[in-house]
Amino acid sequence: MLFLVDIQVRKPETLDADAWEALTQAESDYGMEARRAGKQLHVWRKAGAYATLAVWDVEDNDELHTLISGLPLFHYLDITVTPLVVHPSTVRWEQIQAGGA
Amino acid sequence: MLFLVDIQVRKPETLDADAWEALTQAESDYGMEARRAGKQLHVWRKAGAYATLAVWDVEDNDELHTLISGLPLFHYLDITVTPLVVHPSTVRWEQIQAGGA
Amino acid sequence: MLFLVDIQVRKPETLDADAWEALTQAESDYGMEARRAGKQLHVWRKAGAYATLAVWDVEDNDELHTLISGLPLFHYLDITVTPLVVHPSTVRWEQIQAGGA
Amino acid sequence: MLFLVDIQVRKPETLDADAWEALTQAESDYGMEARRAGKQLHVWRKAGAYATLAVWDVEDNDELHTLISGLPLFHYLDITVTPLVVHPSTVRWEQIQAGGA
Amino acid sequence: MLFLVDIQVRKPETLDADAWEALTQAESDYGMEARRAGKQLHVWRKAGAYATLAVWDVEDNDELHTLISGLPLFHYLDITVTPLVVHPSTVRWEQIQAGGA
Amino acid sequence: MLFLVDIQVRKPETLDADAWEALTQAESDYGMEARRAGKQLHVWRKAGAYATLAVWDVEDNDELHTLISGLPLFHYLDITVTPLVVHPSTVRWEQIQAGGA
Amino acid sequence: MLFLVDIQVRKPETLDADAWEALTQAESDYGMEARRAGKQLHVWRKAGAYATLAVWDVEDNDELHTLISGLPLFHYLDITVTPLVVHPSTVRWEQIQAGGA
Amino acid sequence: MLFLVDIQVRKPETLDADAWEALTQAESDYGMEARRAGKQLHVWRKAGAYATLAVWDVEDNDELHTLISGLPLFHYLDITVTPLVVHPSTVRWEQIQAGGA
Amino acid sequence: MLFLVDIQVRKPETLDADAWEALTQAESDYGMEARRAGKQLHVWRKAGAYATLAVWDVEDNDELHTLISGLPLFHYLDITVTPLVVHPSTVRWEQIQAGGA
Amino acid sequence: MLFLVDIQVRKPETLDADAWEALTQAESDYGMEARRAGKQLHVWRKAGAYATLAVWDVEDNDELHTLISGLPLFHYLDITVTPLVVHPSTVRWEQIQAGGA
Repeated sequence: MLFLVDIQVRKPETLDADAWEALTQAESDYGMEARRAGKQLHVWRKAGAYATLAVWDVEDNDELHTLISGLPLFHYLDITVTPLVVHPSTVRWEQIQAGGA
Repeated sequence: MLFLVDIQVRKPETLDADAWEALTQAESDYGMEARRAGKQLHVWRKAGAYATLAVWDVEDNDELHTLISGLPLFHYLDITVTPLVVHPSTVRWEQIQAGGA
Repeated sequence: MLFLVDIQVRKPETLDADAWEALTQAESDYGMEARRAGKQLHVWRKAGAYATLAVWDVEDNDELHTLISGLPLFHYLDITVTPLVVHPSTVRWEQIQAGGA
Repeated sequence: MLFLVDIQVRKPETLDADAWEALTQAESDYGMEARRAGKQLHVWRKAGAYATLAVWDVEDNDELHTLISGLPLFHYLDITVTPLVVHPSTVRWEQIQAGGA
Repeated sequence: MLFLVDIQVRKPETLDADAWEALTQAESDYGMEARRAGKQLHVWRKAGAYATLAVWDVEDNDELHTLISGLPLFHYLDITVTPLVVHPSTVRWEQIQAGGA
Repeated sequence: MLFLVDIQVRKPETLDADAWEALTQAESDYGMEARRAGKQLHVWRKAGAYATLAVWDVEDNDELHTLISGLPLFHYLDITVTPLVVHPSTVRWEQIQAGGA
Repeated sequence: MLFLVDIQVRKPETLDADAWEALTQAESDYGMEARRAGKQLHVWRKAGAYATLAVWDVEDNDELHTLISGLPLFHYLDITVTPLVVHPSTVRWEQIQAGGA
Repeated sequence: MLFLVDIQVRKPETLDADAWEALTQAESDYGMEARRAGKQLHVWRKAGAYATLAVWDVEDNDELHTLISGLPLFHYLDITVTPLVVHPSTVRWEQIQAGGA
Repeated sequence: MLFLVDIQVRKPETLDADAWEALTQAESDYGMEARRAGKQLHVWRKAGAYATLAVWDVEDNDELHTLISGLPLFHYLDITVTPLVVHPSTVRWEQIQAGGA
Repeated sequence: MLFLVDIQVRKPETLDADAWEALTQAESDYGMEARRAGKQLHVWRKAGAYATLAVWDVEDNDELHTLISGLPLFHYLDITVTPLVVHPSTVRWEQIQAGGA
């Protein structure tokens, strides 16, 4: 089950540089694990922004929440979640593909 | 070069049902052609909405504009375009993959 | 899997009263069926508004989309979908209940 | 009398971790008491957010205010209150149930 | 139980002048009845706007909804409902008054 | 001359509890004085919020500004001012009352 | 007593050109009368917009409402009213002027 | 004197195709004349939108208003005007250029 | 050339009272100089707010920027600039005045 | 490939003046280098604001992101990126120019 997760990072003024570096490194490791587990299918950065768009593939809302609320930067993120479904044109496209068109 | 294109359809009150049906059928055919040409990589519907999220892979801004402004429903769409770049975690992921990790 | 679906009805100016009456009757019948099938768990009207809040219990995003996009008034609704998860306090509450507290 | 209470938590940058832990523990205890007293009927977490949606069942606006303004985290919450009424479809549904339909 | 009800009138372009006149006359009669019944305590017009602010005194959310959704102009109004409670300073003021201060 | 004044309190993170207590006590005293002087006709708290709605009766804009900008919490308030006028239905109501209706 | 009145004109699609011309001519005449009566002190057009900013000098909120709601284009205007007071720097400026500075 | 003018076109539902075609042709001719007269320095289309960004070079606000309010599509445009000034880095850049750097 | 400049002051939490007093005194002196130089034609305070509306009369955008960015409180202000032009009704009014009407 | 980059600077309260001065000097140097490299074609300041509008000419989204995220003030900026394409009127204008018109 797919979700688009749109994340804008808010770098806090009062956190020192080392603590921030440690958090962003942990965030990167966390993302690798989500990728390896097949939970994060796609991730892009928005050009010119400290922001990402990712497509997550999870069992259900609970798994999505567990994964997103576990992000090391969770308290420094503005997060928007959009549940997705297969688009009719994808179904049609796959039928064309299967038919050798 | 990748762009997220977020589209909300505004069905006009004053268009008759046949004209709308013809437009939406043309829209679907147009999408198939974009898919076949490798220009539209992903497309999803937002759950519970008459809206889509798609990732387009184009040569440049000009090609993006030509493709989007050619949509048969163009004048009935609220469109938001977000330029995307590869995320550092994808680079790291591909290095892990290549290294057999 | 639970979703809050927040719906504001936009009554169109140009639809005649009989057509609107037929649509709202169909909407009510549709809601009964969703209730009977156990898909719509709760539904409330917002006081002083032509708007509803409902909690839907569905298999996945696809089923949610099928049910919501099938609403007879779908093209006259502003819809916001919020995926929900069990709250930790509910878990704690159920443990208290089970323990006879 | 029912109200939907939508709460987004704003974790303050300058509060130390222990004080925050104490506050969130107190918040959880407070919720248990509201549940036990039959004042909080439902509560969900929004998936991927530090936010809750709850349905409160209170005597009147005064009781609602007393309960909500007594939340230990009250000064760290963005709160939206929506008064609710029984939906006509619930009335119809209960008539169907009563009639053995 | 008190509510502030903030109403902005949207005069529709396509309704003819007589129908609008009939509706606004019915709206005025309806307001008189609400005033007579003690349900509408205060009502003001916003200066320079086709908009009102009113304080309603009702039994509960259900009565509020019945009264507001019965407004003859209901489908031409943008309505915001705010539940109110007695302010602590009013309590203090009444104590001062009672004490002869 | 009447104005609705809508106030949302923003409790600052960095002020200590005693200073805040002193300010809110001064705010309450100030309100009593405004009430006694007949300048503040009505005041309500919004249910579930740290916010008030009040109707002020002043000579002119200057008096309104003097009174509002003198609030001890002035720099911690989001304030919206709406000038009000007598509603036509109040005039009609008073005529009915006077006529013994 | 001064008010800034910010007006954006919404030209309706369905009104014919002659009716619109008559309304805008009436609006201009109405403005002349307000100017002659000393009620409208200043009026400017916003550059590049079908919008005006005007400063009105009136007895009270009631006179403001009577004047603004009497505008021939009233139902085609988005209106924002801001009550103004003399700025402290104007007082200081007038003292300097009076002192020959 | 420079201004950025951001324009979003709103194609009206009720205008017939020929009238629209005539208006957009007139708009294009008008733009050519502005370009020829040195009044419109730059113009771009926003990728994926029916919208333009242009930099106008005019004598003063009056000339800007005359030019923009004369656009054949004026009543179908959402227009935002931003006055611009030379950026300090341009001054520094020109000094570098002049110095042969 | 006229501009409306709308300014909302944001008093910072972390600046001490003396520094703030010095800044606001400097701001007042600065305003006096602008008034004396004929650059600031009008200035009002918004009733009930820490905010001003002023009309500036400058040579061009550059002079406006130099004057506004030189305000001692510049980094604590939310500023909106609106370029103004003479309104047609002012022209008509002046013709009436000149003709002895 | 062109992009409009709209930047509003947020000067942080807690950074000392020397650190801020160093950052803004580095920002200026960075801009010079972007100008020299032909990556930043135009840059303007918004009149009366601590904000810039610039047109960047880059190879692709990746280069845009590298350049913008490398700005020394990156974490203190609100940035909006708009991909641009050549406007049809520019094409027409160039044809006129080429034809000697």
